[in-house]
Amino acid sequence: MNVAFIGLGIMGRPMALNLHKAGHTVFVHGRRPESMAPLAQAGCTACASAAEAADQADVTFIMVSDTKDVEQVLFSEGGVAHGAKPGSVVVDMSTISPTATRRYAIDLQARGIDMLDAPVSGGDVGAINATLSIMVGGKPEVFERVKPLFEAMGKNIVLVGDNGAGQVAKACNQIVVAVTIEAVAEALTFARKNGVDAGKVRDALMGGFAGSRILEVHGKRMLDNNYQPGFKTKLHQKDMNIVMETAKELGLALPTAALVMQHMNALMGTGDAELDSAAVMKVVERISGVER
Amino acid sequence: MNVAFIGLGIMGRPMALNLHKAGHTVFVHGRRPESMAPLAQAGCTACASAAEAADQADVTFIMVSDTKDVEQVLFSEGGVAHGAKPGSVVVDMSTISPTATRRYAIDLQARGIDMLDAPVSGGDVGAINATLSIMVGGKPEVFERVKPLFEAMGKNIVLVGDNGAGQVAKACNQIVVAVTIEAVAEALTFARKNGVDAGKVRDALMGGFAGSRILEVHGKRMLDNNYQPGFKTKLHQKDMNIVMETAKELGLALPTAALVMQHMNALMGTGDAELDSAAVMKVVERISGVER
Repeated sequence: MNVAFIGLGIMGRPMALNLHKAGHTVFVHGRRPESMAPLAQAGCTACASAAEAADQADVTFIMVSDTKDVEQVLFSEGGVAHGAKPGSVVVDMSTISPTATRRYAIDLQARGIDMLDAPVSGGDVGAINATLSIMVGGKPEVFERVKPLFEAMGKNIVLVGDNGAGQVAKACNQIVVAVTIEAVAEALTFARKNGVDAGKVRDALMGGFAGSRILEVHGKRMLDNNYQPGFKTKLHQKDMNIVMETAKELGLALPTAALVMQHMNALMGTGDAELDSAAVMKVVERISGVER
Repeated sequence: MNVAFIGLGIMGRPMALNLHKAGHTVFVHGRRPESMAPLAQAGCTACASAAEAADQADVTFIMVSDTKDVEQVLFSEGGVAHGAKPGSVVVDMSTISPTATRRYAIDLQARGIDMLDAPVSGGDVGAINATLSIMVGGKPEVFERVKPLFEAMGKNIVLVGDNGAGQVAKACNQIVVAVTIEAVAEALTFARKNGVDAGKVRDALMGGFAGSRILEVHGKRMLDNNYQPGFKTKLHQKDMNIVMETAKELGLALPTAALVMQHMNALMGTGDAELDSAAVMKVVERISGVER
């Protein structure tokens, strides 16, 4: 199939490469010309604009940073909407606002273009190994058309619902991960402040109802005081900002999610933006002056 | 071995019975005489006081409701401390204050009696099936002496540290469970308020970093709007109260644990004390007027 890939950062580059390896003809565009070089070398076609890439594709993928970036890639001069043909599909794999996503889907539909939102989890390792989890929103028949392409990039691929539902699922994922990190941070700090070996507490808790991937993976980072990412705080904060803006639009209170967002804000203020978001532990420790 | 068992409620009764079944001679005492009848029938010896039971035992188990109950069972007239022989062991399996536990251990030590704290998780089903998780605090050599008795009542038996460490681990367990319940409740409410199928979101999240026993078990209860316990809100609230009192003693802030404690307080005020603590979901829904 002819596909376009817009956004060639740490995630987009290996994803585009996996589509190429799966035998598809890949037209790429990145804001920085140098981002296209390794893909052109691998056999993809570098394009001067997103429109030019989309013009040649049956399916155009977008993988950029935030809502405003997707809006620009889609609708600015030289954007996807000005190149993509009626009957083609635009798949936004960025993590952005669900409400903005629904708006974009309507705008594209008016031009005869179908849209899927398909944010991912699994990080750069998942992107390289084609093991991303992909949460999809859009029409079932459009999902079925794009599914073989998703399978070249990911493993756990779920159609959650209509346009925006993929972004909603991703937002839910980020809420649960953020608040569970805080839960584990508070519990392990409680153990240490009581003079009890937090590692043994983690062991005792792993098998029971307190057990989770977060207790396992992020709990280990906390015990080791090693916040090598993983998933950077600045990115998790960006995602929680989407959650908070959407909750505000909806008139929905999310008390603990909002609280953990504040702890991520604090990390941004203490120069910890590049650390794994398990570093929320550092805020819990700092609040009460718990020493390492 | 000769053992005593004080406290024959929904947990204590099957636990005492499992010790009896394992071939030990069990002396029992319960506040309500009728609580002793089924155990006497099964072959245990009913005693008029905790002291009388403890007097005949190498190891005395206590399984009552709260800190003040343990204090009374131990030190009031007719209490365990007035019967237990020097060289014997007192094992408190109730969930109570870690700091009070350390104090009781010192008081008992002064009388030549060793103490273990050994709170459990797994509920009445775990008590009946002898599959409780047992988190133990105390001296390793005392733990080794009592271990075969623990093995008649539970499966995942961990010595976490010194006196009080078992209670600390149990408190950590209750923090993580409470806050993770809230995390899942907020995420699933976010999904529904966005018009997205919360069940599909749960499916999409199960395999990834948001995955946990709580998302699986308590998430299901939330989706079904069925809060049949499980573990009752009033008991989880009691345990969170221990957490909050201990945090206050230690000068430790636990922001999200404190917030979820408020949601449990709210459930107590709306007549939901007997529901599973996954009913924290109802508070999250009520706050923003989310209808079922």
